[in-house]
Amino acid sequence: MTCVKMLAAPINPSDINRIQGNYPVKPQLPAVGGYEGVGEEHGRYVVKEQSAWHKINSGTPVEYAATITVNPLTALRMLEDFVDLKPGDAIVQNGATSIVGQCIVQLARIRGIHSINVIRDSALSDEVKEKLKRLGADKVYTETQLELKKFKEFLANIPAPALGFNCIGGHSATTVLAFLGQGGTMVTYGGMSKLPVTVSTSSFIFKDLSLKGFWLQKWLGSNKAEECRVMLDHLLGLVREGKLTYEYVSL
Amino acid sequence: MTCVKMLAAPINPSDINRIQGNYPVKPQLPAVGGYEGVGEEHGRYVVKEQSAWHKINSGTPVEYAATITVNPLTALRMLEDFVDLKPGDAIVQNGATSIVGQCIVQLARIRGIHSINVIRDSALSDEVKEKLKRLGADKVYTETQLELKKFKEFLANIPAPALGFNCIGGHSATTVLAFLGQGGTMVTYGGMSKLPVTVSTSSFIFKDLSLKGFWLQKWLGSNKAEECRVMLDHLLGLVREGKLTYEYVSL
Repeated sequence: MTCVKMLAAPINPSDINRIQGNYPVKPQLPAVGGYEGVGEEHGRYVVKEQSAWHKINSGTPVEYAATITVNPLTALRMLEDFVDLKPGDAIVQNGATSIVGQCIVQLARIRGIHSINVIRDSALSDEVKEKLKRLGADKVYTETQLELKKFKEFLANIPAPALGFNCIGGHSATTVLAFLGQGGTMVTYGGMSKLPVTVSTSSFIFKDLSLKGFWLQKWLGSNKAEECRVMLDHLLGLVREGKLTYEYVSL
Repeated sequence: MTCVKMLAAPINPSDINRIQGNYPVKPQLPAVGGYEGVGEEHGRYVVKEQSAWHKINSGTPVEYAATITVNPLTALRMLEDFVDLKPGDAIVQNGATSIVGQCIVQLARIRGIHSINVIRDSALSDEVKEKLKRLGADKVYTETQLELKKFKEFLANIPAPALGFNCIGGHSATTVLAFLGQGGTMVTYGGMSKLPVTVSTSSFIFKDLSLKGFWLQKWLGSNKAEECRVMLDHLLGLVREGKLTYEYVSL
């Protein structure tokens, strides 16, 4: 057992969903309301099995140490586990302002992969576009811009994406599907609009699209403790090098 | 070049779609309106490269020889190419009265795989149910029966299907998705209702479903000539042994 004094822990949207009982797997009560955090080893306070903790480099900013698992690890796994992407390939995502979205932009850029990003329309759209482009986004479009449906022109000199990420559902998911190239895969990891994903039959038959899902809790549950440590070290290393940065964007 | 006198050729729904121009790949005109048929080698008549023809056992009923490629081969590939099924596993399909559907029931049974079949409501539902059960179907339900939504009870002592087939779309596709077990895959190969497939976000995230498509013309186009011959011989062998039979069911 290890005793840890908690320093910081984030509230992720998935924590709210879990507390509201929206998740099919219910925790046994009493339960902790969140999934991640950072602390200092100490004589008392939070006591958990040593395997639940991951030692980190003391030079790591506390806000990143506290938040590196849920969102950045989701971004990393989704970029690695579904399609074998090569430098010069492209991905497309909606909800690009989310922390997962910001991480996808940067982790893709590090690998030389283009990103096409769809964001909500808001008074701050232009500011958000600039912000995402500074992180390395190749293209950022609002949902309204995409109503023109000239997806090929929107791609310009970027190849049609082989991989797409959807955390919204509804029309926004349809936009991601429209950007995907022949044989592309869309991974759903959230449903912020609470609307389902609607797909034409011909997208499956003629465009040969595949639709899948990703849930980090399931991935973490499948004996990935050792792999997970390596990945968190990798991600925190990128943070310390200034190659991975993210913050909550209010719209 | 081989000269063949055509004896018989079927009109499949996919031929109608192709003639109506519903397919994204348009044939160069003048073009033959169908994809399969049977004939006798002869001095004149239809002339095509030898590789376009497949020699068959002369004991094969002509109506099966003429129709063995488009529908039975689709059934065989879809059962083999997406999920590694083992005896005792189950599949679910809508449009079970189609020729692909009838073939799936029988090819599954030969491998010891259970089939759950969804059919349209009609005055002939009971007759169709009996017919499919004689072919080896474990369960046959009309769409109206399934509105009760007791999918677990409908499965009874059959495991939740790992693989589903959809040729209808709309609500009927939703029924196939509801039957699928955790981590299951639904393959769409047709869209007879002309309605899209609608999937909840949680089906992807928590139920870990995958959605894919199958199009035989694409499969045939990918250098599969030799494999294809072996499979057609296999299927026609099953026909001659009385293990594979099918006919057009009018509803």
